[in-house]
Amino acid sequence: MSDKVYAVSKVVGTSKKSIEAAIENAISTAAESIKNLDWFEVKETRGYIDNDKVAYYQVSLELGFRYEK
Amino acid sequence: MSDKVYAVSKVVGTSKKSIEAAIENAISTAAESIKNLDWFEVKETRGYIDNDKVAYYQVSLELGFRYEK
Amino acid sequence: MSDKVYAVSKVVGTSKKSIEAAIENAISTAAESIKNLDWFEVKETRGYIDNDKVAYYQVSLELGFRYEK
Amino acid sequence: MSDKVYAVSKVVGTSKKSIEAAIENAISTAAESIKNLDWFEVKETRGYIDNDKVAYYQVSLELGFRYEK
Amino acid sequence: MSDKVYAVSKVVGTSKKSIEAAIENAISTAAESIKNLDWFEVKETRGYIDNDKVAYYQVSLELGFRYEK
Amino acid sequence: MSDKVYAVSKVVGTSKKSIEAAIENAISTAAESIKNLDWFEVKETRGYIDNDKVAYYQVSLELGFRYEK
Amino acid sequence: MSDKVYAVSKVVGTSKKSIEAAIENAISTAAESIKNLDWFEVKETRGYIDNDKVAYYQVSLELGFRYEK
Amino acid sequence: MSDKVYAVSKVVGTSKKSIEAAIENAISTAAESIKNLDWFEVKETRGYIDNDKVAYYQVSLELGFRYEK
Amino acid sequence: MSDKVYAVSKVVGTSKKSIEAAIENAISTAAESIKNLDWFEVKETRGYIDNDKVAYYQVSLELGFRYEK
Amino acid sequence: MSDKVYAVSKVVGTSKKSIEAAIENAISTAAESIKNLDWFEVKETRGYIDNDKVAYYQVSLELGFRYEK
Amino acid sequence: MSDKVYAVSKVVGTSKKSIEAAIENAISTAAESIKNLDWFEVKETRGYIDNDKVAYYQVSLELGFRYEK
Amino acid sequence: MSDKVYAVSKVVGTSKKSIEAAIENAISTAAESIKNLDWFEVKETRGYIDNDKVAYYQVSLELGFRYEK
Repeated sequence: MSDKVYAVSKVVGTSKKSIEAAIENAISTAAESIKNLDWFEVKETRGYIDNDKVAYYQVSLELGFRYEK
Repeated sequence: MSDKVYAVSKVVGTSKKSIEAAIENAISTAAESIKNLDWFEVKETRGYIDNDKVAYYQVSLELGFRYEK
Repeated sequence: MSDKVYAVSKVVGTSKKSIEAAIENAISTAAESIKNLDWFEVKETRGYIDNDKVAYYQVSLELGFRYEK
Repeated sequence: MSDKVYAVSKVVGTSKKSIEAAIENAISTAAESIKNLDWFEVKETRGYIDNDKVAYYQVSLELGFRYEK
Repeated sequence: MSDKVYAVSKVVGTSKKSIEAAIENAISTAAESIKNLDWFEVKETRGYIDNDKVAYYQVSLELGFRYEK
Repeated sequence: MSDKVYAVSKVVGTSKKSIEAAIENAISTAAESIKNLDWFEVKETRGYIDNDKVAYYQVSLELGFRYEK
Repeated sequence: MSDKVYAVSKVVGTSKKSIEAAIENAISTAAESIKNLDWFEVKETRGYIDNDKVAYYQVSLELGFRYEK
Repeated sequence: MSDKVYAVSKVVGTSKKSIEAAIENAISTAAESIKNLDWFEVKETRGYIDNDKVAYYQVSLELGFRYEK
Repeated sequence: MSDKVYAVSKVVGTSKKSIEAAIENAISTAAESIKNLDWFEVKETRGYIDNDKVAYYQVSLELGFRYEK
Repeated sequence: MSDKVYAVSKVVGTSKKSIEAAIENAISTAAESIKNLDWFEVKETRGYIDNDKVAYYQVSLELGFRYEK
Repeated sequence: MSDKVYAVSKVVGTSKKSIEAAIENAISTAAESIKNLDWFEVKETRGYIDNDKVAYYQVSLELGFRYEK
Repeated sequence: MSDKVYAVSKVVGTSKKSIEAAIENAISTAAESIKNLDWFEVKETRGYIDNDKVAYYQVSLELGFRYEK
């Protein structure tokens, strides 16, 4: 596996439902334009509040993927 | 939207169930004394353990709200 | 000056014009409800973009003030 | 409760299902060799991606426990 | 103890004598206006110098307290 | 607004004049290749010195924009 | 001294009296099970409050010790 | 040199041999798709272990390059 | 340019007018005793408040300069 | 690979020769008492100086390994 | 007080007795070569262990002083 | 060894060859004007790129040395 090179992109996914759903939304949308997605790391977890409830979660991720040749 | 001013308060919500429930508990309790809650940011996620299981999650949030005039 | 106690509040000021104006807006609005404001520290500098220009700056500050007795 | 001493171990739990399940897996596995587990703190939340979906969550925790005499 | 909510306030205590005395001063002054103080965390330790000696310590704390209903 | 996904790019703008001008330069140049720019966050503020004056400011930004479908 | 290897353990000491006493308690308890303790580094200083006074200090340390062969 | 704008990309290079070789691999692979590479900054140095030896180094870099017009 | 060595000094500039003026003041004062100033990096932006307005900005910089032989 | 649990230990390796040799020394010494070492992450790189040369490098690592059942 | 410029030096004080004594030692030794010392900020608190007791505290400080003209 | 005081200077060494050579260059140049150099800590590892190869490494160090009396 050595000598491989990966790129890392930052994306922000949102979801009304849960932190995990925001992560999945970020990954599936990014996958439309990035191939070979390999790992993620959560960098920030935020959200917006409406009527004293969570309106939606907003999760920033770094996404790692094998470099396209 | 420019020239608005927001205040930020730090609160810690707890829940036996999930990280999301701890966030909702923090927001709904804070909303009893703070109006115009607008956003949150998770700062720390901790918890207590009882009998080798999560007893409860303890999530620290910064809560942003429009300044009361 | 020893044995004094200070409180620290976090506020977010906004301005269309500059980072300095966002700081002044945060301080003058906070001063309507907090007495004895003494110092500030910039924690984050962000902003929103509209039509490929800065729509407004959004500066998070910690504001220190002598504790009200 | 004073004069007690605690040790802190770092563990990484994984789960296909959720962040909370990864935390519970970490705690229950650590409990096989560590007694008196008392608290945890999430340090990093990562994961691996397979076929453009989360393959599993990978959550790093610090686990605090009373020092064994 | 689950489902409780805590607020966190930042205060700065000062003392000519010691770091511990600055912490106690911050807590006892804050206690005049905040009930149910529960924990603290030291965030910064600074001080001023006069005549090449410590004039006073200046310790920033986060103070946690149960949310007032 | 939920379920939207954003990408985040890091850029560095420079200006002889001011920090704000460096931010505007970064945004307007990035806008030539990125649509839907929505927000920015200042990450580092540096600069070069010539003849004991600021030669130019160099401001690193994260730029957020709606994911292009 | 080169080519030596050290291990680092994290412990939390507590004391009613002072930060230094909490550090000494952590070290003397850890020394019951760890040989060759060599250095420490304070990572966090917290504490609990009872009746508006410090109930006890709680100091997190990293403890370095020569690797047992 | 003022008023230039740079973009910053994050990449992860790997090498069996050394940290420097992992950096060179990251740069030469990134250079296949990015022109005008100008500087790098090491963000994390990790690696994988096989048979109690380093299997390969894994170095995360930020790569700066002049913005393509 | 390789094999050059630089030293880095930390200074704090102040100004009533702006963050940029505080940076220029720091550089021009440091230049009275340091030759070959080459770059700066802003580390903290603070200030003092008087009568609910910014009394002066206080900007901490790291200043890099070629090592004097 | 999901539902596996890993432990993380911190060690400090030293070497007169290079950063890479300090990492290898840390891993091979830790491997005498820890099985299944899987990954490492460099946390700090320091060293001691003797006669104005590096006497030895001192590299702090987190070592991850599969939890022993 | 505006338009003054301060320099910041990093020093490490040691003491067998306490953290406060290590700070005082650092300041009084630095004062032999630096005039106009004005403030300090604790950056790290470490120490060495001998016979399972603190041999001495080692406290890193930033020291601020008015720039010498 | 107690009650000694150390100063810490920040320097940046460069080298075409390796990270270790950049560290050695920083130390040997600093040693021309600083006596009693004792330890170093790597703070940042950067570099410049020319023709898609590392032109030179640029390593920032804190250098500790016994205070000159």
